[in-house]
Amino acid sequence: MKRFVLAAMASLTLWVPALAQSTGDLGLVVERASGSLLVVDQSERARIGRITGLGDLSHASLVYSPDERFAYVFGRDGGLTKVDILEQSIVKRVMQAGNSIGGAISDDGLYVAVSNYEPGGVRVFDAETLDLVADIPTGSKTIGLVDVPGTRFVFSLWDTGETWIADLSGATPQITRIAGMGANPYDALVTPDGRTYIAGLFGDDRLTALDLWQDPPTPQPILQGYAADREGLPVYKMPHLEGWALAGGEFVLPAVGQHEVLWVDARSLRETGRTATHGQPVFAIARPDGRHVWVNFAHPDNDTIQVIDTMTKQVVHEFKPGPGVLHMEFTPRGHEVWLSVRDAGKVMVYDTETFEKLREIDAESPSGIFFTARAHRTGL
Amino acid sequence: MKRFVLAAMASLTLWVPALAQSTGDLGLVVERASGSLLVVDQSERARIGRITGLGDLSHASLVYSPDERFAYVFGRDGGLTKVDILEQSIVKRVMQAGNSIGGAISDDGLYVAVSNYEPGGVRVFDAETLDLVADIPTGSKTIGLVDVPGTRFVFSLWDTGETWIADLSGATPQITRIAGMGANPYDALVTPDGRTYIAGLFGDDRLTALDLWQDPPTPQPILQGYAADREGLPVYKMPHLEGWALAGGEFVLPAVGQHEVLWVDARSLRETGRTATHGQPVFAIARPDGRHVWVNFAHPDNDTIQVIDTMTKQVVHEFKPGPGVLHMEFTPRGHEVWLSVRDAGKVMVYDTETFEKLREIDAESPSGIFFTARAHRTGL
Repeated sequence: MKRFVLAAMASLTLWVPALAQSTGDLGLVVERASGSLLVVDQSERARIGRITGLGDLSHASLVYSPDERFAYVFGRDGGLTKVDILEQSIVKRVMQAGNSIGGAISDDGLYVAVSNYEPGGVRVFDAETLDLVADIPTGSKTIGLVDVPGTRFVFSLWDTGETWIADLSGATPQITRIAGMGANPYDALVTPDGRTYIAGLFGDDRLTALDLWQDPPTPQPILQGYAADREGLPVYKMPHLEGWALAGGEFVLPAVGQHEVLWVDARSLRETGRTATHGQPVFAIARPDGRHVWVNFAHPDNDTIQVIDTMTKQVVHEFKPGPGVLHMEFTPRGHEVWLSVRDAGKVMVYDTETFEKLREIDAESPSGIFFTARAHRTGL
Repeated sequence: MKRFVLAAMASLTLWVPALAQSTGDLGLVVERASGSLLVVDQSERARIGRITGLGDLSHASLVYSPDERFAYVFGRDGGLTKVDILEQSIVKRVMQAGNSIGGAISDDGLYVAVSNYEPGGVRVFDAETLDLVADIPTGSKTIGLVDVPGTRFVFSLWDTGETWIADLSGATPQITRIAGMGANPYDALVTPDGRTYIAGLFGDDRLTALDLWQDPPTPQPILQGYAADREGLPVYKMPHLEGWALAGGEFVLPAVGQHEVLWVDARSLRETGRTATHGQPVFAIARPDGRHVWVNFAHPDNDTIQVIDTMTKQVVHEFKPGPGVLHMEFTPRGHEVWLSVRDAGKVMVYDTETFEKLREIDAESPSGIFFTARAHRTGL
């Protein structure tokens, strides 16, 4: 009996610390080569666990439940996995399509939507059970899926140049189709207020914006002809549109096929400037206060980071964290930034004021970094 | 021995559920009459506990640690109390001044600052231990304390019309003093990016803005003479400046002594419109997406809520939740709002799209409602 008590106490000791854990400063780092997630603690600048068995995690992304306990991981292989960050375990895993490209969670936390290439469309799942609750075939590769207020999802169709709005607030999904977005939308973003949806186009030399407060929204061109009269550089990597600065009323976008980022007035949607960069930008992500924009680059320049000041549009800092800088994630109030340096097998933590390196954390081929604060934000 | 095991198991059962709790969707409701805090769960729309013994909580406010586990409660009586939302208990409590008016937590989570009337000034405490780490006497009642990026706090001096910036990123606090803000600043806000600080003035018929990205910032008048040529109504309650809409590039402020809210272009700081309201507004708070602004009112109109559409500046909904509507708090992505209805002894939860009441929760004279998502935001 005594042994039993000791065993119970021992298992108690092992078990409770994982649970006596607040979740506001945690995060997950995608380890693409090993199909695992590293559980990290921002405040401790440390790894605190690993969740394995998630399949193919190349280009994987994830979203969080409103309570910051569960993550929904979207694998490129069509796998949708629900993990528990407190228990550091997989809750459920379904293969929901052949080739998926990302997902989102509704504002009420009830629905998880996934956009798919094969078969083309969006599938919506119950966030609790992962049961399928709505299947929205589009007849096209589907990209740029985001959540917006009103229990709605917005996404675009590569083959037909349409954007669809799916409203899940009622008993059955209501679909609004908007044609004329342009040729081959390949990615999209929505502003943090969920109002302006911007799609990047592979087939046209511009982007297209929608004001989702209009009913119905009308496509509006932005940056028309931004690459005209200039020889396009080979596109080593499709730029992501997920990050931008809104400071001073502008945002910043990576230019396709050019060594520059583009500045756009958030109100008029007119171009306000260009900043020449070290290479082809992949992510241009604003520090949460918007004063600085951090940029990483496509191969062969992916060992470098540049930091651009929003007021002057000048590069104010440049450094080489190491080979294969794939992603950046700021702490929610912006005092530190975490970088995935894939080929160094490290996640590196920097002070965003002094640019001092604060910590290196071992990780296996790290790519995307996702802090739980994303649970509280629209459109991620 | 068997009894001991059962006792251990029983206490385990009682103890673990309080800890096996993620913290992203929790909150605290100030119960002013009883000096207690109700612990609430947004997702469950439920109260899950109560923390007692916090002293005088009239006009109390609080901020959260970055991990969303600890809250720092600023009592009007000068008490500073650190509570653990997981354990639902007080960690430490100090009487730090005779009369305090609110506080803030630094972007790195290391420092908690409190602004005081008596003695006038700001005191800064170690967030872990509540040990005093900096005392900044101002010789004036001190108001409008906010955190901004760079481990800095900004606050204003009622008696001298100055704003001070305290930089705590180094070994000793560096103070920047800005004179000429105007007569008797009584409250202030900072925009969510931490860039623009706006002080309301009791002694002048305007507000004053500072662009904190300037070095040094220069006071800039806003809404000069907005009450000129109109008979001022008696000010039953000093309006708060903590909430505003940034949608469409505007924000909204409650007018002092008038039955209206004022709209200001966030870029030019010029007035863009006025909306007549049911009574004297106390809080004008934007839904997180900025599309709607919810307004509550001073006595004798404090049983009413009006909802204003940002695009049209028209009231689109009005209802009477009950007597003494003191505060509103939106869920982080805005699909629901919680209201404190003091004299009904209820917190009420509403759907922000349909305006349907979803739940009533018993509370003792509820006032401020604070969800843990505030941990991730600047300037609250």
